[in-house]
Amino acid sequence: MARIVMKFGGTSMAGTERIRRVANIVRRQQAAGHEVAVVVSAMAGETDRLVGFCREANALYDPAEYDVVVAAGEQVTSGLLALTLQAMGCKARSWLGWQLPIKTDDAHAKARIEDIDSDALVASMQAGEIAVIPGFQGLDPAGRVTTLGRGGSDTSAVAVAAAVKADRCDIYTDVDGVYTTDPRIVAKARKLPSVTYEEMLELASVGSKVLQTRSVSLAMKEGVRVQVLSSFVDDDAPLADDLPGTMIVSDEELEGLEMEHQLITGIAADKNEAKVTLTRVADRPGAVASIFGPLAAANINVDMIIQNVAKDKGETDVTFTVTQADLDRTQALLEEQKETIGFYRMITDSKVTKISVVGVGMRSHAGIAATMFKTLADRRINIQAISTSEIKVSVLIDADETELAVRVLHTAYGLDATDAG
Amino acid sequence: MARIVMKFGGTSMAGTERIRRVANIVRRQQAAGHEVAVVVSAMAGETDRLVGFCREANALYDPAEYDVVVAAGEQVTSGLLALTLQAMGCKARSWLGWQLPIKTDDAHAKARIEDIDSDALVASMQAGEIAVIPGFQGLDPAGRVTTLGRGGSDTSAVAVAAAVKADRCDIYTDVDGVYTTDPRIVAKARKLPSVTYEEMLELASVGSKVLQTRSVSLAMKEGVRVQVLSSFVDDDAPLADDLPGTMIVSDEELEGLEMEHQLITGIAADKNEAKVTLTRVADRPGAVASIFGPLAAANINVDMIIQNVAKDKGETDVTFTVTQADLDRTQALLEEQKETIGFYRMITDSKVTKISVVGVGMRSHAGIAATMFKTLADRRINIQAISTSEIKVSVLIDADETELAVRVLHTAYGLDATDAG
Repeated sequence: MARIVMKFGGTSMAGTERIRRVANIVRRQQAAGHEVAVVVSAMAGETDRLVGFCREANALYDPAEYDVVVAAGEQVTSGLLALTLQAMGCKARSWLGWQLPIKTDDAHAKARIEDIDSDALVASMQAGEIAVIPGFQGLDPAGRVTTLGRGGSDTSAVAVAAAVKADRCDIYTDVDGVYTTDPRIVAKARKLPSVTYEEMLELASVGSKVLQTRSVSLAMKEGVRVQVLSSFVDDDAPLADDLPGTMIVSDEELEGLEMEHQLITGIAADKNEAKVTLTRVADRPGAVASIFGPLAAANINVDMIIQNVAKDKGETDVTFTVTQADLDRTQALLEEQKETIGFYRMITDSKVTKISVVGVGMRSHAGIAATMFKTLADRRINIQAISTSEIKVSVLIDADETELAVRVLHTAYGLDATDAG
Repeated sequence: MARIVMKFGGTSMAGTERIRRVANIVRRQQAAGHEVAVVVSAMAGETDRLVGFCREANALYDPAEYDVVVAAGEQVTSGLLALTLQAMGCKARSWLGWQLPIKTDDAHAKARIEDIDSDALVASMQAGEIAVIPGFQGLDPAGRVTTLGRGGSDTSAVAVAAAVKADRCDIYTDVDGVYTTDPRIVAKARKLPSVTYEEMLELASVGSKVLQTRSVSLAMKEGVRVQVLSSFVDDDAPLADDLPGTMIVSDEELEGLEMEHQLITGIAADKNEAKVTLTRVADRPGAVASIFGPLAAANINVDMIIQNVAKDKGETDVTFTVTQADLDRTQALLEEQKETIGFYRMITDSKVTKISVVGVGMRSHAGIAATMFKTLADRRINIQAISTSEIKVSVLIDADETELAVRVLHTAYGLDATDAG
């Protein structure tokens, strides 16, 4: 017998017929002899509808009242899943965020979970009752409703799994696991049996949208074993116990799971970046600070940065990337600061993609980056910027070359599936 | 300065634009120098949508989980009204049922309010904050969400008004007050400046759908002055303080408000009844009990009852009315019991209307019923059944004669508005 927390997203909860399919997965998991808690999102589209109401009511909305409105979506699906499980003959009840409670800080609309009182929850699960918990919502120290920010239900699930000391947190999504790259780009992409928390964090941060980054960080911190798997399965498909998805675990556990982990775990493409180049910036102390200080103050996250070697006359070009969503604000801020910074021209380009290769194997193997640069050069793909971390190498390329780059790198690192799958 | 509880129904809260109109009424009420709390319903149609989900999920739904689902509708409108008030520059916050809390018994889906902790609420109102409270919802002794049954928001408003010792509870509806009869039937119907609790109870029970009966009972018990008025007014219409609606008060207060209260307050027509006649029932002790016992056990409410004088052979006909919604179940139950009861035939008729004249004046004036019977007889309208209470006389007539009967009675009791209005 294991204790399992299951999480289902908005697409899986969109309407009573889909909720019935979710309930069937949950029922079978419990019938296999496990203690089960389920964390649910709102029906797909519902949170957007509620957020829309808030914006119409008050463009500069009070996040405390916004939270009251948007938390209603998960309340509805929690009750409905409990009802559906009961209709299948299961014992089930909902536990709202304020009922457990899921204690958070008071940063409304982007609250962080601080603690979950799990005694009543564990007692209920031990008594054979399926616990249904709305994701996304919590209770602040003043007793008011909070929400965790968009996508927060993954984090709720991991936090509940940590609180009840679950053996596993199964995140059911519309994909059946974590792949070596986007299967829509590379037909030979392979589903990974397991990845480490750090690899998943890097993949999440570079555009693999399988899990919310915060949930992976929390799982790493709390040592929660997370499995990603598909909720769109036949009613008699194998149970999650038979590990059909991708396990996200610690380095140590990974070594136990796989004889030899792939050198490279995956290749991600992030089309969400924009490149900004400031030409002829004075090559003097403080010049770079005068660029990035105001951006940081405006909460604009800068990713890749390249400062060319100084040309003649003590001037240099500075190139960096921001998200496309932040590009307009970035341009406006830098124009305001043009005198202070002292640049000649600002050139922006949204038609870029960041390609990243990720893998814990990089720590012990040299030559990963060299393979990347050579593979791209052989195809005459120009590298516009480079950044690296301990387990990741990223390059910025022209967006038109995204698919080609991902495909040739996938082959170069030996990730292509064989015909046997 | 007064302390006022305002209540807005689902039609008034249907969408952010209507909520803005509600917020404007609330803002102006507060700006006139009052302490204000607002009780709101879910958006029109939303509760039906949520109830529909529950039925799809589980036909025999657990009322505790049903309550979790349907309470979400009022949570949404509470947050949205608070946001809208804030956008107008008012201080406002929502107080959910479990936050105050509004303590109820544990009769889920039809809970009764037992107590409301009002300290925090009063302190907030005294500090100039508008309190926004979802109607319909509460918290049971086990800490689970309850709802009060359909239309329960009127009761929530009266209960909040009692708890904060409000000077007045203004119920905003889609009509602008209580009329002498349905203005769609009688063009000369007049809006009443005031009625007593008991008159309102009788009017509510006989088909005047202005207020939920339970809310009137509670107002009477707690001595809450209730005003019914319209939420569909211009942004610069007179405030509720100028009493544009109908006040519902005690007998004593009514005497202070009106020099001479109308003998008859109003005439109501209830088309929701069905007549059942059992012929040739044995005229022996226990025969009637054998009819109504099983109906009571099945929670079917019997209204008017007539037992004809015994005919020959110790047999009699028994006629009674039930709501049309209960007619099928009533027929099935009585067929089952046919042997036990020992009747000859069962005749049913849904094409009937119950016409009631209501007024506290009846207590001191004789001849009210006689006027009714004579007025109907003059128009050859046949009376099929009669029932009376201390302040009401009801007759059952053919449904086709409803409009005629209401109109002639309205004139006979001197209720028609003069041309001056």
